[in-house]
Amino acid sequence: MSTDLPQLFRQPALPSHVSICEVSPRDGLQAESTTLPVPVRLELIHRLTEAGLTSIEAGSFVSPRAVPQMADTRSVLDGLDLDSAATYPVLVPNRRGLDDAIAAGAVDVSVFLSVTESFSQANLGDSLQATTERGLEVARAATTAGLRVRGYLSMVFGDPWEGAVDPQDVASAARRLVDAGCTTVSLGDTIGTATPGHVTAVLDSLVSAGIPIDSVALHTHNTYGQALANVYSALQAGVRQFDASAGGIGGCPFARTASGNLATEDLLWMLDGLGISTGVDIEAVAATSQWLSDQLGTPLPSATPSAVLSR
Amino acid sequence: MSTDLPQLFRQPALPSHVSICEVSPRDGLQAESTTLPVPVRLELIHRLTEAGLTSIEAGSFVSPRAVPQMADTRSVLDGLDLDSAATYPVLVPNRRGLDDAIAAGAVDVSVFLSVTESFSQANLGDSLQATTERGLEVARAATTAGLRVRGYLSMVFGDPWEGAVDPQDVASAARRLVDAGCTTVSLGDTIGTATPGHVTAVLDSLVSAGIPIDSVALHTHNTYGQALANVYSALQAGVRQFDASAGGIGGCPFARTASGNLATEDLLWMLDGLGISTGVDIEAVAATSQWLSDQLGTPLPSATPSAVLSR
Repeated sequence: MSTDLPQLFRQPALPSHVSICEVSPRDGLQAESTTLPVPVRLELIHRLTEAGLTSIEAGSFVSPRAVPQMADTRSVLDGLDLDSAATYPVLVPNRRGLDDAIAAGAVDVSVFLSVTESFSQANLGDSLQATTERGLEVARAATTAGLRVRGYLSMVFGDPWEGAVDPQDVASAARRLVDAGCTTVSLGDTIGTATPGHVTAVLDSLVSAGIPIDSVALHTHNTYGQALANVYSALQAGVRQFDASAGGIGGCPFARTASGNLATEDLLWMLDGLGISTGVDIEAVAATSQWLSDQLGTPLPSATPSAVLSR
Repeated sequence: MSTDLPQLFRQPALPSHVSICEVSPRDGLQAESTTLPVPVRLELIHRLTEAGLTSIEAGSFVSPRAVPQMADTRSVLDGLDLDSAATYPVLVPNRRGLDDAIAAGAVDVSVFLSVTESFSQANLGDSLQATTERGLEVARAATTAGLRVRGYLSMVFGDPWEGAVDPQDVASAARRLVDAGCTTVSLGDTIGTATPGHVTAVLDSLVSAGIPIDSVALHTHNTYGQALANVYSALQAGVRQFDASAGGIGGCPFARTASGNLATEDLLWMLDGLGISTGVDIEAVAATSQWLSDQLGTPLPSATPSAVLSR
């Protein structure tokens, strides 16, 4: 196939640049049954950096009994240049995780909040009020320690147990993360049920609550095939930060029906076609995804890497 | 999972109703290596009709040597109620196919035009000028015979050999189909390379050429994961007719890199969430897709049917 596809057709109202947070080394790998050793996880991160990605989740400081795939994240950080232009956020679920991350030299950390009682109980092991207080305390402590903090909200667009989630509750939680010092709030469609009008409604709630759209990121899953349409809707609302995973690897292992993150290649194909710059080379990401698929011994959720590489 | 997902969030600027043309029994099955016998193809069409679909591609009057999967389309039509409210278009590639379709009692037919020289040569076996003249002649003859005619344009957003396609060429071809009596022109992204700004640009060209947006349908493929984002873009431009295939079955067997139609379930999930009525029951379609997967002995391209049925 001709390599000049996709054809470039700009939409003047859309942003000219978008930042991608690559989540495959953390959100992706933690959902895989195979645990990759540190050197392979490091090679993955190095390949993604070479492809032009400048924000790459490097791991998490959680119990290796709970999430063995993320064991030895400290050794992963040891192998990265944490003073480079690229950022390598690590997830810290609690104060102990934050202390470990600081001891390992982390510059960027992420904290998680649930927006529903059920997910808080099921995933974070305590009441919504208790897990929210703990998460905010960690965010404040990290900010005070001079780290950059990314806040994640889970189940923003629906919960497998409770169903509907009020956009006002999302805005309140986002407000608290910003007040605790988070520079970015990533809205997670953990079970992939959102549709484009829902995305717009939630973003409207955040903007009405005084949260700058520049501090909002969208984290979509492709369970119902909606991930990229939701990104397009958010782009139109001014969002300029999106989470994605090479090849679509991963999901949330605690959410029964979650499957497939938005593939970084699907996102890049659309942004390239819209003339929106990212600094990322789609072919290099696609080659990395195929290499990762070999390492894991599983097929990729997205067919885009193979379509890109067979052009 | 709660069954009240997706949550309903209307977008006031979007249409309140959308028509889906279900293509799995023709565009879908012709790309599968397994040829299903007439009773199974009839059961597929009956199940889709029961699910609420009112426009279902029933087959094609092509050479059974070229496309064995569509052999005995006459017998398929014999098993359908062609006087019902549902329409069952059949593809007619030439005058002989049209005569056969009329003899079989068809009320709705489809004709195909290429918009590129290369695809015309590769898929239709003659020059673009010759295949266009033949296609238009068939459309005029069908109109004169009192049939409803659907015009398909292939490779509207790019061609595996030539690459870029000028939106003006698409508008010219669409204009000729409308002038030949076609009530609908379906714009085919045969190799799935389109992105939302490209869709908007092509639709703008058609509208500028005086083609009513109500007579335009979009036919997307998911090769690069763009199908549903492109639909959302077209919805915003006023398009109200979309082609889709249960479970994402199919593609164009002549286009090297084509893979996966837009899944009807992916489309329905989005439209249901946007509060856009279709009259179609997503669970009934998903159950039909899983049954079809069993009949074909192949997995479905889309994971949405299984997500829908495991709620």
